[in-house]
Amino acid sequence: MSAVAPYQPGLEGIVAAQTRLSHVDGQEGALILAGYRVEEIAPVAEFEEIVYLLWHGSLPTPTELETLRQELAAWRTLPGATVDLLAAAARERLPAIDALRMAAGTLDLELPAAMHVDAKLGIAVLARMPSIMATYWRLRQGAEPVPPDPALGHAANYLYMLCAEPPSPAAVRGLETYLNTVADHGLNASTFTARVIVATRSDIVSAITGALGALKGPLHGGAPGPALDMVFEIGDPARAEAYLRAKLEAGERLMGFGHRIYKVRDPRAEVLAAAARTFYTASADKRELYALAAAVEATAVRLLAAYKPGRNLQTNVEFYTALLLHGLGLPTELFTPTFAIGRAAGWVGHALEQIATGRLIRPAAHYTGAVDRCWVDIAARTAAA
Amino acid sequence: MSAVAPYQPGLEGIVAAQTRLSHVDGQEGALILAGYRVEEIAPVAEFEEIVYLLWHGSLPTPTELETLRQELAAWRTLPGATVDLLAAAARERLPAIDALRMAAGTLDLELPAAMHVDAKLGIAVLARMPSIMATYWRLRQGAEPVPPDPALGHAANYLYMLCAEPPSPAAVRGLETYLNTVADHGLNASTFTARVIVATRSDIVSAITGALGALKGPLHGGAPGPALDMVFEIGDPARAEAYLRAKLEAGERLMGFGHRIYKVRDPRAEVLAAAARTFYTASADKRELYALAAAVEATAVRLLAAYKPGRNLQTNVEFYTALLLHGLGLPTELFTPTFAIGRAAGWVGHALEQIATGRLIRPAAHYTGAVDRCWVDIAARTAAA
Repeated sequence: MSAVAPYQPGLEGIVAAQTRLSHVDGQEGALILAGYRVEEIAPVAEFEEIVYLLWHGSLPTPTELETLRQELAAWRTLPGATVDLLAAAARERLPAIDALRMAAGTLDLELPAAMHVDAKLGIAVLARMPSIMATYWRLRQGAEPVPPDPALGHAANYLYMLCAEPPSPAAVRGLETYLNTVADHGLNASTFTARVIVATRSDIVSAITGALGALKGPLHGGAPGPALDMVFEIGDPARAEAYLRAKLEAGERLMGFGHRIYKVRDPRAEVLAAAARTFYTASADKRELYALAAAVEATAVRLLAAYKPGRNLQTNVEFYTALLLHGLGLPTELFTPTFAIGRAAGWVGHALEQIATGRLIRPAAHYTGAVDRCWVDIAARTAAA
Repeated sequence: MSAVAPYQPGLEGIVAAQTRLSHVDGQEGALILAGYRVEEIAPVAEFEEIVYLLWHGSLPTPTELETLRQELAAWRTLPGATVDLLAAAARERLPAIDALRMAAGTLDLELPAAMHVDAKLGIAVLARMPSIMATYWRLRQGAEPVPPDPALGHAANYLYMLCAEPPSPAAVRGLETYLNTVADHGLNASTFTARVIVATRSDIVSAITGALGALKGPLHGGAPGPALDMVFEIGDPARAEAYLRAKLEAGERLMGFGHRIYKVRDPRAEVLAAAARTFYTASADKRELYALAAAVEATAVRLLAAYKPGRNLQTNVEFYTALLLHGLGLPTELFTPTFAIGRAAGWVGHALEQIATGRLIRPAAHYTGAVDRCWVDIAARTAAA
């Protein structure tokens, strides 16, 4: 079979899963989360509601939501060994995403046997990921970690554990909208990784750890930092056109524009643009940066249409991710980990869905190596044998 | 595209990679490692020679081999934080494969910057995996971990760190043959996981950690334990036929027989059967168990042919893995981790090969969920919305 089937580089266009979690329509510029358009649901839902929706296929009733909130809040405390590991990683000043991947792999410690079943492990991993990141970031800054506050929701508690003070409702809403927007996105490389791992009937901690490993690659998790760096470098709306023209004339890529799948504007960019606008314009000292970013974006889109006609390069999710998360007080290094904290909802949902199929994922390979070689003993080997 | 392409459950028959590492021919019952038949190379090569062969495509010269030996021996010491983590895992009596996956994720600690490049990370991970497993096992037994001995080869040092005494040449040869035999096997689920992760341009530690997560699933890493349990349960060659007939009459599966890919005898089983025969028959106190296992196998194959005609159920690699590793003094719980220690050679080789393609692996999914739903506020939600 493998001798005759064609090689499918990158598995492009090959359908590897069926999912009821989300639908990405690149031609229409639409992202559907379990039946709801992302722009309708992300700005209003609590993150826990999106988690419930992705895992169960429908929005929770008040009772179901309260149960999930309490379950998640109950598992935020990290195992002692995980905190020790984060402290060691902080001493080596490891990148935050590496520390998150490393520590996520230890999340089956300090869990009672009743939690070592698929759906429960999903709860524990999801609950503990923000704790890992906030704890690590504080340790890296030489600050004392902040214990979780079970009275706060998932998003609010993350900000609280990072900053050691109760976040404003506007900041919580901004983060919640962000986490909802990135909670799932079809069969991306990290989600696929989670499905491949759990398809062997391995466990959810293994699947999420693998997904985090995939996410950290620059071809996937991307780098939302550079888009914002460009805005800061421009510094003044009046300088945007000259700066961007110079970049384009030099043949450089503009970070934050264009997407492999979306041929029209990325619907997530719309949601995050609106969330950033709401958040920034509500406080006087933040309006200026927002105006600058909006001017840079408008100019970039206009110039890209002129310099790259027919390419339809639109603002992508990275641009407004960077702006919004920066406004919420998150350091650039936490952008990708915070993306992971949102995407974990989808990872767990896909893992549970894959487990239900009961099917191993095992593609074939074409062998392109040597054939019919004969063993030569080391003593007789002088060049490549 | 995803709307029209058919769903490919398990990606069966889909060619996801080109590889020069190994070729699995299920119809012929052949496994080729970079041009050499497994039965020709596994019983004679040093494990480090197989590693070199898989990573570089040819057998090493004496100088190349010596360099690799020294590099691997230099990175066996574990980071302090990894040992602490293993101690915490041992206190919770975590399964060995979970401890290995957890600790492998920490292997980018205590590495100088020069080691944080793909091929060097592969060296460090490969070198440290036996140290993790030996250290963990001793901690679980309440024994003091044994520091690595740089004068010993990879396989010998693993046995030394496990048992705290220099292994016999026969035991080293037995383990080396085992590690060589399982070092690579086409695009199995864990190898595919490593490729998917590293295809995002993530790192080798992330890839191996993900692969270990996939390997631990019972649909992949399997359970070589039960095959041996059956041999012990039978206890006497004279009882084999009655015992096996009873199992087959009851419709039970015989562990250690049959393989998804090999329609004839698994070539690895031949190699391991020969290695077990050599190892067991060399010492008087081990011959009896070998004779028993051989009798059980012969009877099982004969009865399977009668009870399941046309299925061609042959002894698989698990049967002789269990026998050989048991003979080497390894506890059943370390069978799958030891498999991982061998397979890591292939994982790293495949990861390096995938990185060289520069290509993301990102299949598509079919959306089977709800459409056109409208948001209902929580207060108005009484049943599934």
